[in-house]
Amino acid sequence: MIRLTYHIETAGDPERLAAKIASDQSTGTFVALPGETPELKARVAARVVGYRELPPVGEAAWPDGRAAGATYRAAEADIDFPLEAIGTDLAALMTIAVGGASAIKGFSGFRVTGLRLPPAFAGAYPGPQFGVAGTRRLTGVHGRPVIGSIVKPALGLRPHETAALVRELVEADVDFIKDDEKLMSPRYSPLADRVAAIMPIVRDHEQKTGKKVMYAFNISSDDPDEMVRNHDIVADAGGNAAVICINAVGFGGLKFLRKRARLALHAHRAGWDAMTRHPSLGLDFSVYQQFWRLLGIDQFQINGIRVKYWEPDDSFVRSFQAVTTPLFSPADCPMPVVGSGQWGGQAPDTYAQTGRTTDLLYLCGGGVVSHPGGPAAGVKAVRQAWDATVAGVPLEAYAREHEELAQSLQTFGASDAAA
Amino acid sequence: MIRLTYHIETAGDPERLAAKIASDQSTGTFVALPGETPELKARVAARVVGYRELPPVGEAAWPDGRAAGATYRAAEADIDFPLEAIGTDLAALMTIAVGGASAIKGFSGFRVTGLRLPPAFAGAYPGPQFGVAGTRRLTGVHGRPVIGSIVKPALGLRPHETAALVRELVEADVDFIKDDEKLMSPRYSPLADRVAAIMPIVRDHEQKTGKKVMYAFNISSDDPDEMVRNHDIVADAGGNAAVICINAVGFGGLKFLRKRARLALHAHRAGWDAMTRHPSLGLDFSVYQQFWRLLGIDQFQINGIRVKYWEPDDSFVRSFQAVTTPLFSPADCPMPVVGSGQWGGQAPDTYAQTGRTTDLLYLCGGGVVSHPGGPAAGVKAVRQAWDATVAGVPLEAYAREHEELAQSLQTFGASDAAA
Repeated sequence: MIRLTYHIETAGDPERLAAKIASDQSTGTFVALPGETPELKARVAARVVGYRELPPVGEAAWPDGRAAGATYRAAEADIDFPLEAIGTDLAALMTIAVGGASAIKGFSGFRVTGLRLPPAFAGAYPGPQFGVAGTRRLTGVHGRPVIGSIVKPALGLRPHETAALVRELVEADVDFIKDDEKLMSPRYSPLADRVAAIMPIVRDHEQKTGKKVMYAFNISSDDPDEMVRNHDIVADAGGNAAVICINAVGFGGLKFLRKRARLALHAHRAGWDAMTRHPSLGLDFSVYQQFWRLLGIDQFQINGIRVKYWEPDDSFVRSFQAVTTPLFSPADCPMPVVGSGQWGGQAPDTYAQTGRTTDLLYLCGGGVVSHPGGPAAGVKAVRQAWDATVAGVPLEAYAREHEELAQSLQTFGASDAAA
Repeated sequence: MIRLTYHIETAGDPERLAAKIASDQSTGTFVALPGETPELKARVAARVVGYRELPPVGEAAWPDGRAAGATYRAAEADIDFPLEAIGTDLAALMTIAVGGASAIKGFSGFRVTGLRLPPAFAGAYPGPQFGVAGTRRLTGVHGRPVIGSIVKPALGLRPHETAALVRELVEADVDFIKDDEKLMSPRYSPLADRVAAIMPIVRDHEQKTGKKVMYAFNISSDDPDEMVRNHDIVADAGGNAAVICINAVGFGGLKFLRKRARLALHAHRAGWDAMTRHPSLGLDFSVYQQFWRLLGIDQFQINGIRVKYWEPDDSFVRSFQAVTTPLFSPADCPMPVVGSGQWGGQAPDTYAQTGRTTDLLYLCGGGVVSHPGGPAAGVKAVRQAWDATVAGVPLEAYAREHEELAQSLQTFGASDAAA
């Protein structure tokens, strides 16, 4: 059985709508069929197996023209779909149990809030190739978060300009660097030229210091063939990671790539916000992330505490829990990537609220680059913040003997404004 | 230039948010860069080129915790992105100009309402291989809508059971039949077995009558390699069409398939409703459809008048206009597929509201199968409805001399309930 949980809001009867989802999305039909025996139905029919009425809500999430003051009934329904009816293809699962149901009339709100897959999916999908352990092995970072940074501005730098910034970051002793998710392979910065400009810096640094910085090149393309060509350019130049804009390449793009992948795949979920910002519409991250993990994501960007883009802290914390909870085995967990406005000041809250783990990639843009002492001081400050956090020492106290952290607190501390 | 139009709602200043979209999604950066010359910015910076304030709205589309009675400013902004900044990759366009912008803080509502692409995209994408002319050529139907039907129940029939229903429909003289979008290749009905059971019926009918019914097999899969294998099974058996669940296979799946396609590609947009049902959130179909047309869709399902699933008639009419408006040339228009609860009774309104054209595939499920005289009478009734409509004769008048239409009016007419 594949179990879906739906949040339903309606001016009508939510229990009737739950039954309609189960019927429409499986054996529902407009005509009594001679061949439609009870046995046939039993084989593939979805069934409502749980139903919990919730307090009514005062507004329609999907406007429905009713006057202000109307109320809407809300409920949560669990529906079991036989594995036999769907199979293990994620395109079928998405079409039947997620996307298709959003077309039903009568909802004033509808959100997919839960998904529990049977073990057959474990056998059908590769999952992460590298995940947490592989990311640690490739970066050589153990016992603390992997510290990353991003090359900005997002668009416009030519490869040699990007490379100059990369050199600064590499020399700042950062563990991980990534292309912006918006930079793929435009004419002013073709991926091949960017790789040619950047990888010698990474390789030279490795030769000199023994430390190989992980650089995630954005290889995303609407064309799976092109994405694999991009992948090979990076891998052949000695690179070990790639940014994938998962929503834009789609299931097909990622599935095709993963079969042929030698690089750690770093997921950026641009566009996800539109699917989840309304709490009564769209789908929960806990559902969404399962698809991409099965398809093979190694590192998953999930925002952080007090981010500069939209997301409440409690939503981030739930996302962190989601990606660090095994679907079938610990090996199917990607490395959580915590970013957006991070500078180290959020380390104590991040650590406290995510189960006191350092198994994360902590991505600081301005928090590293805009440090008054320069990027090297920025990286030191972030490490100091995590050292203090793990040791249970308040940042302010630790900063008394750690100048870089003191400078970060002064520069970014008032507003968490490492924008 | 690539021009995007955004609908913005906010408790703050929509003009400031428009400027923020342009900045964040192009050259925005957290640090003043030595290399960031005005020349560099000019090359890739997005710019707000149009701004129209709209009447304020009384509710936050994305709940923001403000008290009832608060108002929100609304505006429409046009933003030009230089082609140089994005290139012609649709994954980049989606990430930069559609998805990414939905993460910005401060929106109470945000919807992408317009997209105008420069001619460079015409050269970069194949567009439909068959479209309207190819669908007419393959079905041999001219001067009237192509009349289609769907095999139901959606799930559970084994190949021989499906084939028995297909035989009935083929003998009913329908022009087009399709698998349900939810039926891909589950264990009880593997695609290869379905093709083996159905194609002999199609081929035999062609031998006997000279008429080849177009059967669109659902070849969707999360795996592009598998989808191409499925495609080849259908094509090698003499099939000429395939259903693709576009949201589930993603840009990557469709792009990969289209390069290798010999079949007409019939798009089902399951999941689209969640992106568009709220008028202040998500994106307009007019934007969405451009991506899939460029990628090569030949037939596009867009609901119809008085449908059984969610969609107001005016929204359907706008969708019809969208898919029948050339992006760059008439050849890039797919065949509109009008369906959901259709039985012929909606023909007059469909014809009147979509520019008096018969260039459409008119898809009737129950309207054909549940006709009291059987599927053959159902197909006749639908053709009669369209004949009457094009002749300008009211259906009731035409029905006086056309028994099948009279029966349809009696059976389905009261409620349009060809469910």
